Amino acid sequence: MARAKRRVSESKTVVARVMMPQDANISGNVFGGSILKMVDEVAYVSATRHARANVVTASVDKMDFRSPVHVGDLVTLKANVNAVWRSSMEIGVRVEAEDPRTGTLRHTGSSYVTVVALNRDGKPVQVPELLLETEEDRRRNQEANRRRSRRFEEQAVENFGKRRK
Amino acid sequence: MARAKRRVSESKTVVARVMMPQDANISGNVFGGSILKMVDEVAYVSATRHARANVVTASVDKMDFRSPVHVGDLVTLKANVNAVWRSSMEIGVRVEAEDPRTGTLRHTGSSYVTVVALNRDGKPVQVPELLLETEEDRRRNQEANRRRSRRFEEQAVENFGKRRK
Amino acid sequence: MARAKRRVSESKTVVARVMMPQDANISGNVFGGSILKMVDEVAYVSATRHARANVVTASVDKMDFRSPVHVGDLVTLKANVNAVWRSSMEIGVRVEAEDPRTGTLRHTGSSYVTVVALNRDGKPVQVPELLLETEEDRRRNQEANRRRSRRFEEQAVENFGKRRK
Amino acid sequence: MARAKRRVSESKTVVARVMMPQDANISGNVFGGSILKMVDEVAYVSATRHARANVVTASVDKMDFRSPVHVGDLVTLKANVNAVWRSSMEIGVRVEAEDPRTGTLRHTGSSYVTVVALNRDGKPVQVPELLLETEEDRRRNQEANRRRSRRFEEQAVENFGKRRK
Amino acid sequence: MARAKRRVSESKTVVARVMMPQDANISGNVFGGSILKMVDEVAYVSATRHARANVVTASVDKMDFRSPVHVGDLVTLKANVNAVWRSSMEIGVRVEAEDPRTGTLRHTGSSYVTVVALNRDGKPVQVPELLLETEEDRRRNQEANRRRSRRFEEQAVENFGKRRK
Amino acid sequence: MARAKRRVSESKTVVARVMMPQDANISGNVFGGSILKMVDEVAYVSATRHARANVVTASVDKMDFRSPVHVGDLVTLKANVNAVWRSSMEIGVRVEAEDPRTGTLRHTGSSYVTVVALNRDGKPVQVPELLLETEEDRRRNQEANRRRSRRFEEQAVENFGKRRK
Repeated sequence: MARAKRRVSESKTVVARVMMPQDANISGNVFGGSILKMVDEVAYVSATRHARANVVTASVDKMDFRSPVHVGDLVTLKANVNAVWRSSMEIGVRVEAEDPRTGTLRHTGSSYVTVVALNRDGKPVQVPELLLETEEDRRRNQEANRRRSRRFEEQAVENFGKRRK
Repeated sequence: MARAKRRVSESKTVVARVMMPQDANISGNVFGGSILKMVDEVAYVSATRHARANVVTASVDKMDFRSPVHVGDLVTLKANVNAVWRSSMEIGVRVEAEDPRTGTLRHTGSSYVTVVALNRDGKPVQVPELLLETEEDRRRNQEANRRRSRRFEEQAVENFGKRRK
Repeated sequence: MARAKRRVSESKTVVARVMMPQDANISGNVFGGSILKMVDEVAYVSATRHARANVVTASVDKMDFRSPVHVGDLVTLKANVNAVWRSSMEIGVRVEAEDPRTGTLRHTGSSYVTVVALNRDGKPVQVPELLLETEEDRRRNQEANRRRSRRFEEQAVENFGKRRK
Repeated sequence: MARAKRRVSESKTVVARVMMPQDANISGNVFGGSILKMVDEVAYVSATRHARANVVTASVDKMDFRSPVHVGDLVTLKANVNAVWRSSMEIGVRVEAEDPRTGTLRHTGSSYVTVVALNRDGKPVQVPELLLETEEDRRRNQEANRRRSRRFEEQAVENFGKRRK
Repeated sequence: MARAKRRVSESKTVVARVMMPQDANISGNVFGGSILKMVDEVAYVSATRHARANVVTASVDKMDFRSPVHVGDLVTLKANVNAVWRSSMEIGVRVEAEDPRTGTLRHTGSSYVTVVALNRDGKPVQVPELLLETEEDRRRNQEANRRRSRRFEEQAVENFGKRRK
Repeated sequence: MARAKRRVSESKTVVARVMMPQDANISGNVFGGSILKMVDEVAYVSATRHARANVVTASVDKMDFRSPVHVGDLVTLKANVNAVWRSSMEIGVRVEAEDPRTGTLRHTGSSYVTVVALNRDGKPVQVPELLLETEEDRRRNQEANRRRSRRFEEQAVENFGKRRK
């Protein structure tokens, strides 16, 4: 049977909410952890939309917090499927924060999440192919594949180190 | 001093999150209350963006829950400033739900929220004028003004009834 | 089989809790949404008590927030089944707030919630008849029936408008 | 200045909410801890109402969980000031649970909470006298004084033991 | 079949988290209830580790709050199985709080939790024997047995009182 | 004035809690985001203990989720200050999960968090020197410095790429 296909635009996802006191420390600075939880949430939805299957997060790439976020800010996360392989997908997530009383929007960080689709028995299952339509889609896909190669290399180096110990 | 002006498009707001077990009863149906809480949240942000001031909710209009929402659904709310008067604004909110495993999107309800802008002493304060740019903006504005007239009438009838008791 | 009967007093319900920082914006004003969530919760319990069945909220009527509620206030909601039809019920909810350090009680709002009883397959199911015992019960029942007629009319007008478009 | 007086009935407090999935373990049994949190909440409000001051919990007496509570149950707690001394008060709390689909009410436990009133500097401050009006008020007051004597004795025994080590 | 045995050290449990705004009243003092909820949580895990079965809390002994806890403090609870009988166990819990900005550690309270192991039908089930290895283990075991005798006595006195009414 | 010094052992931190329904998707798999939130929490405490200052998270390194975590598991995170520079510190976090009904412990992931100490004006402030005492301390310190060099290189490459666009 031919593998199903789905366009990048079909799984674009937005998640957004206002930061509350429980998201912040005593100085009012929002914990990175509150934002990482939303990064995982939006990647989960985007991957589920593409795969139409149950999915689990395999890894979350390094994330820089470029500017502080405060209680009262609206935090918006935009997710995009960048690349799919057999059962895994790379989801790109962009985080923006805005103080609605001033209207100033800041790009506070970005991350790449690797998600795996599972069948009912919890085994990895093939996901639909990804149709790239725009120049942007193609650029993101190339970068995702480059990141994947780098991850494999790092893994190999790390495993080599372990074997030598 | 001339009253400030702000376009409808400057305060359009989206809030979205995945429904969790704590949002639902034992049968997995999301409580209307969880959605009403998000209606108030998105109206709050949209009104704050327009007014650039502290705001409080004065009333939330009748809301029908047209179709059930379940744990795991992505619920997205879109808010729009429909009309502004001196210190109060009507915010229109549209609620959509999608099960990301099937991709089916449902319009689950709409509501109108009246929000008042306050100064630091908690007194109502004048908000910027609303610039209507599209046909849609103008249609929503007319309807908001009609709803407002109706609210005043109902209030008058209700007060009349009270005086007679 | 004769339809079961239950008195108004058997399903009267009280729900109450102290407002916490996560219920309020930065100025300490409790979000209307936190209160609407409790309105739905208390209506859910009252309707379940009357119907002895699974229930879902069909609509929540317009709610005015007459006076601000703050973090630390005890918010108490009282629910009452006002009227039952075949499978739907109108629940009246009264909201009161009190700052326990001063003891001042304020009536902060009221709302009417329409709830539908469902069987295990999610289909509407007949609910017990409502036994009206006091003068108050009868007055509330009449008003609920009047509100219902008005809702039907508004629905008819709205549908008529849609058909003409 | 004469010490202020307040009646038992002026600080009677009810707190109630529906148990949610986050209140229970995987088998659906509500954690004792969720109920103890509400015990402390209702005692806090009742003591604040009597003292009209900031209060802190000094101790919570032994609590038996007589019957299991489940997700979906309405848990209602009733608090009563049983006795006041200089700056401390004993609050009695009764816990009831009801499955709204069956209407069966169970008394699931009771506890006694000792609360201390503080001034703005965090120092204990005198609270109003307690006016006992009913037979029930007087019985509870006697029992509270007996429990207090027993606590002092136990404390003395414990301290004696410590000194001998 | 011989009864299984498990050492005290196999079920020692630590639970710890930072106190957040939702754990405290307006003055920033953490509610005793937030700590009691963690007491029950850590006792639940320790008892489950020993019993390898579903468990429920039967009672929580009197708990004194010796020193106030504030938002931002790291609260750490250490649990220990002190004694097991047929299907019930006494778990000792020690609560410590530390302000990480000063490093000062305070012992804020201790409590004893009685937990019962249940089989799949919710009936009490025999738990493994407890292997005491250290002097400390033996001392705690003796004290737990003494507390148990005292609880039985108090129960008997209470029941006697009830019968006379 | 000589720079203060603090030993690695003085800021070792443990945070642990039981996974609840709100931490998981419908299949009962805990979201990576719930664990990342705890990673940030434990790093925050450990860094605060070393710096005795307000701190913010600057970045969280790539984290692999090696094995699934489920509702009911006890998740324990152990944090360690690996290296300090002027105002920034690298905190290593190890995540373990255990189903208390089986006692099987799994290492589910590790991450490195970079945290910056701030003074009251929100400006970076010098932190105490780190005293390495054990072989393990020294090994972790070397690896942290290596990771830091690599981060600088990647940053340089990325910036170079940006300039060329």
